[in-house]
Amino acid sequence: MKRKSIKKGLPPGSLIHIGSLNKEKTKIQLISYNSRVLKSEIFNDVDTAITNISKSKITWINIVGVQDSVVINKLGDRYKLHPLILEDIMNTEQRTKIEFYDDCIFFTIKLLYRVNREIKSEEVSLILLNNTVLSFLETSKEIFEPIKNRIIENIGIIRKQSADYLFYSLIDIIIDNYFSVIEDVEEQTERLEKMFIAKNTEGILKNIKINKYDILFLRKAITPLGKEIQKIRRGGHKLLNDNNIIFFNDVYDHIIQMVESLYIYSELNISLQETYHSLLSERTNKTIQLLTIISTIFIPLTFIVGVYGMNFKHMPGLTLSYGFYIILGAMIIVAFSMIIYFKRKKWF
Amino acid sequence: MKRKSIKKGLPPGSLIHIGSLNKEKTKIQLISYNSRVLKSEIFNDVDTAITNISKSKITWINIVGVQDSVVINKLGDRYKLHPLILEDIMNTEQRTKIEFYDDCIFFTIKLLYRVNREIKSEEVSLILLNNTVLSFLETSKEIFEPIKNRIIENIGIIRKQSADYLFYSLIDIIIDNYFSVIEDVEEQTERLEKMFIAKNTEGILKNIKINKYDILFLRKAITPLGKEIQKIRRGGHKLLNDNNIIFFNDVYDHIIQMVESLYIYSELNISLQETYHSLLSERTNKTIQLLTIISTIFIPLTFIVGVYGMNFKHMPGLTLSYGFYIILGAMIIVAFSMIIYFKRKKWF
Amino acid sequence: MKRKSIKKGLPPGSLIHIGSLNKEKTKIQLISYNSRVLKSEIFNDVDTAITNISKSKITWINIVGVQDSVVINKLGDRYKLHPLILEDIMNTEQRTKIEFYDDCIFFTIKLLYRVNREIKSEEVSLILLNNTVLSFLETSKEIFEPIKNRIIENIGIIRKQSADYLFYSLIDIIIDNYFSVIEDVEEQTERLEKMFIAKNTEGILKNIKINKYDILFLRKAITPLGKEIQKIRRGGHKLLNDNNIIFFNDVYDHIIQMVESLYIYSELNISLQETYHSLLSERTNKTIQLLTIISTIFIPLTFIVGVYGMNFKHMPGLTLSYGFYIILGAMIIVAFSMIIYFKRKKWF
Amino acid sequence: MKRKSIKKGLPPGSLIHIGSLNKEKTKIQLISYNSRVLKSEIFNDVDTAITNISKSKITWINIVGVQDSVVINKLGDRYKLHPLILEDIMNTEQRTKIEFYDDCIFFTIKLLYRVNREIKSEEVSLILLNNTVLSFLETSKEIFEPIKNRIIENIGIIRKQSADYLFYSLIDIIIDNYFSVIEDVEEQTERLEKMFIAKNTEGILKNIKINKYDILFLRKAITPLGKEIQKIRRGGHKLLNDNNIIFFNDVYDHIIQMVESLYIYSELNISLQETYHSLLSERTNKTIQLLTIISTIFIPLTFIVGVYGMNFKHMPGLTLSYGFYIILGAMIIVAFSMIIYFKRKKWF
Amino acid sequence: MKRKSIKKGLPPGSLIHIGSLNKEKTKIQLISYNSRVLKSEIFNDVDTAITNISKSKITWINIVGVQDSVVINKLGDRYKLHPLILEDIMNTEQRTKIEFYDDCIFFTIKLLYRVNREIKSEEVSLILLNNTVLSFLETSKEIFEPIKNRIIENIGIIRKQSADYLFYSLIDIIIDNYFSVIEDVEEQTERLEKMFIAKNTEGILKNIKINKYDILFLRKAITPLGKEIQKIRRGGHKLLNDNNIIFFNDVYDHIIQMVESLYIYSELNISLQETYHSLLSERTNKTIQLLTIISTIFIPLTFIVGVYGMNFKHMPGLTLSYGFYIILGAMIIVAFSMIIYFKRKKWF
Repeated sequence: MKRKSIKKGLPPGSLIHIGSLNKEKTKIQLISYNSRVLKSEIFNDVDTAITNISKSKITWINIVGVQDSVVINKLGDRYKLHPLILEDIMNTEQRTKIEFYDDCIFFTIKLLYRVNREIKSEEVSLILLNNTVLSFLETSKEIFEPIKNRIIENIGIIRKQSADYLFYSLIDIIIDNYFSVIEDVEEQTERLEKMFIAKNTEGILKNIKINKYDILFLRKAITPLGKEIQKIRRGGHKLLNDNNIIFFNDVYDHIIQMVESLYIYSELNISLQETYHSLLSERTNKTIQLLTIISTIFIPLTFIVGVYGMNFKHMPGLTLSYGFYIILGAMIIVAFSMIIYFKRKKWF
Repeated sequence: MKRKSIKKGLPPGSLIHIGSLNKEKTKIQLISYNSRVLKSEIFNDVDTAITNISKSKITWINIVGVQDSVVINKLGDRYKLHPLILEDIMNTEQRTKIEFYDDCIFFTIKLLYRVNREIKSEEVSLILLNNTVLSFLETSKEIFEPIKNRIIENIGIIRKQSADYLFYSLIDIIIDNYFSVIEDVEEQTERLEKMFIAKNTEGILKNIKINKYDILFLRKAITPLGKEIQKIRRGGHKLLNDNNIIFFNDVYDHIIQMVESLYIYSELNISLQETYHSLLSERTNKTIQLLTIISTIFIPLTFIVGVYGMNFKHMPGLTLSYGFYIILGAMIIVAFSMIIYFKRKKWF
Repeated sequence: MKRKSIKKGLPPGSLIHIGSLNKEKTKIQLISYNSRVLKSEIFNDVDTAITNISKSKITWINIVGVQDSVVINKLGDRYKLHPLILEDIMNTEQRTKIEFYDDCIFFTIKLLYRVNREIKSEEVSLILLNNTVLSFLETSKEIFEPIKNRIIENIGIIRKQSADYLFYSLIDIIIDNYFSVIEDVEEQTERLEKMFIAKNTEGILKNIKINKYDILFLRKAITPLGKEIQKIRRGGHKLLNDNNIIFFNDVYDHIIQMVESLYIYSELNISLQETYHSLLSERTNKTIQLLTIISTIFIPLTFIVGVYGMNFKHMPGLTLSYGFYIILGAMIIVAFSMIIYFKRKKWF
Repeated sequence: MKRKSIKKGLPPGSLIHIGSLNKEKTKIQLISYNSRVLKSEIFNDVDTAITNISKSKITWINIVGVQDSVVINKLGDRYKLHPLILEDIMNTEQRTKIEFYDDCIFFTIKLLYRVNREIKSEEVSLILLNNTVLSFLETSKEIFEPIKNRIIENIGIIRKQSADYLFYSLIDIIIDNYFSVIEDVEEQTERLEKMFIAKNTEGILKNIKINKYDILFLRKAITPLGKEIQKIRRGGHKLLNDNNIIFFNDVYDHIIQMVESLYIYSELNISLQETYHSLLSERTNKTIQLLTIISTIFIPLTFIVGVYGMNFKHMPGLTLSYGFYIILGAMIIVAFSMIIYFKRKKWF
Repeated sequence: MKRKSIKKGLPPGSLIHIGSLNKEKTKIQLISYNSRVLKSEIFNDVDTAITNISKSKITWINIVGVQDSVVINKLGDRYKLHPLILEDIMNTEQRTKIEFYDDCIFFTIKLLYRVNREIKSEEVSLILLNNTVLSFLETSKEIFEPIKNRIIENIGIIRKQSADYLFYSLIDIIIDNYFSVIEDVEEQTERLEKMFIAKNTEGILKNIKINKYDILFLRKAITPLGKEIQKIRRGGHKLLNDNNIIFFNDVYDHIIQMVESLYIYSELNISLQETYHSLLSERTNKTIQLLTIISTIFIPLTFIVGVYGMNFKHMPGLTLSYGFYIILGAMIIVAFSMIIYFKRKKWF
């Protein structure tokens, strides 16, 4: 995997792919529609795709695969995109941000999903132009399928709206997707809670750590989003229809809710770890108390019996008939005083 | 229970109930009043209810049960509510927020109460329209009874005021309800304090954890409220009477006070846990000191008696008349030097 | 003691006393003055007091005892106070706040003092009206005596100033009173410091906890004050003389200084607790090292002597003349290697 | 030492000295200069000093000793200073602040220095008037000597500048002085680092605590300074020359740098303490492992030899020729399995 | 190494070198270019360099070595730089900042790189003047080589742009360089993660500490940068071309991303240390459990065998044929009840 530092010293706008390589060829899906007509095609070749763009309708170009600088460059030329936008599209370690240009709005956002309990993240770039939306995905995840269906089957108001509604719909579906990932963290936290209450703390430390990392990862991806969506809500850009701002309010709301939830889960996991740590101290304390009780009772007794095990010729009491019982009695008294002492200390 | 993620990919404004199901049929209570006349009826059928709405008076429609999209939809049609409002009403995992529309104000808030020491939360949605207030409750909790009584028995100024005063009264009673939940946390914290002082720390860890969770839960529900009420206090909306802003100041004040109290209880519980943790360390330390004292005194003595328990034919002193007493004296000296050593170390 | 939650569902402005009951009857002290004349009287009856109010002078009405709603109501009627002000006066669990009305300024503040090492708090309400200041105290604490003396004996500029200077003087003396409480926390913290340095840590945990609670309590009472005094400093209200704003700057300064001091003491106590916790770990470590040294040296030796204490008929060396000394030598070698091992580990 | 609380109830502007007493008589140093002429005198008597003030030049009056209210009062009269300024000069527990009056600027700041590894703080008050600077020091520290030299020997631009440049120079030298104190904290922290790496942790806990207290003390003194200097940087006061604002930018820069450094050292010391705490746990763990290994190996063996030390008449094997060797072999096997078990657990 | 405090008392603008000494003589590299012509020369003598400056082109003067006040002074004279700028150039302990003067922009920034796993920092000062950029480096690091190449080989748009683009390019390459240092912290953190999962925690404490220090160091250097670059982004200075602001947006973006990454790594390392601490407690607990099990089983047994090792003449059972076996059975029962007790406690 290529890293950010490889671009050190290159002029701005250099098209270098940063990220894991998608080995498949870039695919370009073209959907043109208005309230009456619809055309949906998939191309493997960028030139053919560009010549097929219809100007009279709303056009959605969904590009899957961002590692090919030729494709990115040609689209950039076609829509006169700033070289820094193209650079950002190819850099999948970009942070979430929105940028307003005179005749386009550029948005990069993380797509999050789980594969085998591990959170994966993928870069999505969205560009809103006049009557056109460009979307760039790293791999062929089926994330935008519901939107395609809503367009093709004419569900809801999407066919009647301008391009910014499509732009909103794509952002909305990506953010809605975060809920499943967050709900998984929630379930994990609740599972740990239950383990805790059941006093089954085997492996709890490792699981708390994983949970904390997941939350950290999610917070990093989601927290900056609020500020960026806020910029859209302020409105004022010619490509954004004032009547659609309310939908972005809704998105903003979801983000704040997620950020608050993540804060709560973060606190819960921290609290779990602290409580577990105190629990360990409690256990250690109990264990040492047990050890101390046993030792304190028997070590003096063992000494006493040791004394009468010595082989001195002349020792008092050895030959007495009741010598053994006297010593036994003495030992029982010692042991009982110890037990009473510990009882008073509430050690058991 | 349905979760947020099930709405992934649906167009905005889709009416899907999120939350635990209330199995009873939705009930609609209609109260119409002005300073002279009053009408109060309960309907099970939304159509009948709507036809009974009187236009010349102030109308309060209290809907109990939000799982039925038909009811919500019909009310939405009747009052021309935005689809996103209807969606939020049916989503009981909504976060607390206020939204200003041109001809209505929408407010969702959590109702908090305790059932068997556990805090329960329920979604309440309030809509202020011209001369009309709509309130949506999940289940038939008797939360609004005092307001109904004040209207019916004409207590205070409620019958003389416009609809925004009713809107305020509903918000006020929900927020006043938080005080009982917070006071319970306060009592729990004081109880733990007393346990602590009485050195009775059995189960304290579990109780601190529960307290911390309750506080976290309350803070999540109450903290965002301040910001939302602040928006009302700024005034300026045609549905809000400037003279009534002072009542919202009062509500705001209560919220700030709650937030501050929760902060204090949170700190107290954190402090309790830390002190308990140090106390455990103190105890472990004391226990180990006891173990070490006993072991350090008796282990060498036991060794000495062991030496004279060996079965060598030729050992010095075994046959001396005072051999036993010499060794005994030596052991007493060893033991006393140990005791003096520990005394000096202030171990007991 | 009555709690906040009992007011749930009551209309705003309901006069219910919240707080501990003062069993004495409400007393009303009336001081009227200008730069030349002075009248000071005490009344037990509110009606008589009201009829004695002189209009041509500056009037200070000091009410001791807020549990009697009749008194509060009559004063409210006389000065046309908003019902919410009256409600707040009777609620002694009110948080510190200032409220600007058109023709009055309402200020509630906590009076803090120590009784037997415990911090007590009492509600004080101050109302600035045209040429009049009303002050409400819960019990007959002598807090305002110095101000009375300054008026009666004509010390400083108080007799020459308008009512807002009296208002300032009352606030100032309450806040100056905080210094003694804070200085006590400071002394406690220094005392703990010295205990710590003297390695006398008995009971330190409990004392740190008390200190932390006191600081928390003080911060809760004092921190919001800064923001409220700030509102006065901005000036602009017709009852506030611009030339007197500088005195409120001075008050503000004191508050900031207190808040900063409390922050420092809070950090010092946290640091003390952490250091104490590490100290405990250090001690436990030392104790266990001692136990381990003693055990590690003597347990193998005790085993060896045990071996030669077995009663086998045929054991090598038992009958040798120097058998005992050989074994003794072997044991001394074992013990010395152990001691050298621990010396190298720097355990003693 | 007198404390703040003694001023409780006194009218504002009461001249009471708060701080440790300087037993020497107040000295007044008068330096008058312009780019051509210079006069420098020291007076013990305030009246003589005042009559010697020249009006045509820039005058710097440096007062050493602030415990004498007569001196402060006479200077206050001469320069028409507000009573609250005079009160603040005599109060050496004042917090750092700047105050803008119509015809003067008042600045109080802490002078910090080290005496035998302990940080001492002293109050300095500076007043900028038209062509005049007053400076008040608690004791005769030589802090302002370099400025005096620069004026007397005409070094730099100080003689050519107006009074605000002198004002700046005095502030600058006090703040530059902080660097030595901070560098000392830095050295202490590095010394602890090295002790830590050398595994010589004797007394490290105490030293970290001292460091943390020093940092806390410095932060309290320096952090509010930034905000106060900011107020000067905004400019706009008639006594401040716009061209000299750049010098205050430089001072501001130093303060921000100090605040950042202190934050870093604070974090480093916190990190040191935490790491030390974990190190202690590591050591305790290792020690207990050693104890457990020794005990676990020898305790069962000691039991076995104890069994064959019993005095039963009829015990199997005692009379066998190889009985002793069989038992010896069994014990070696037990010991070795234990050792292998601990090896596998990686305990040594 | 000289420190900041040595400048105490000196007038502002005193040229004193603060930092480690670079023993080589200062070198001056002069690159003059426009889109057609280019001249690149290296001088050891500042006077010759100054006479070689061409006025018709864009000039980049790269000075390596800042310890020679003569060189700095002559350049300052040539370009009429403020004495405080010159002072800051020679002070390599300067904090990152940008300063806008009427006809120049001054920027000091840290250059960060790794030498043998240790992060080194070097001061870089950049001055943007009309058609001229001055850059000051402490030692001859090859940091600016890529920019020189882009100018000499005419790569990208650098030759066609004004001086502010060169200024941007120099800032950009320094900041891009941070990515390598941060990626190294990332790798270290991941390595520790893996050690942790592999339960190989030897030396982990020391490595976490180093990581935390590195992150602290990086945060201190990078965090203030955001605020400073923000000042450039606001634009408005005559030396900054509005079309180039977008490049500074890109730089700003990188800084925010770095700050966020550092926050994450910081949290990860803190989490690692906490988890390690809990792990130690877990291990200590397990170890003590083992010790307690062994001791609790064998100590009573050893006592029993000790009893029958006593040399009393009259003891019951010693002479019985099955005495030994009875005692043996009793001991087995005791041992098994202990084992069952520990099994129930889930200790093994």
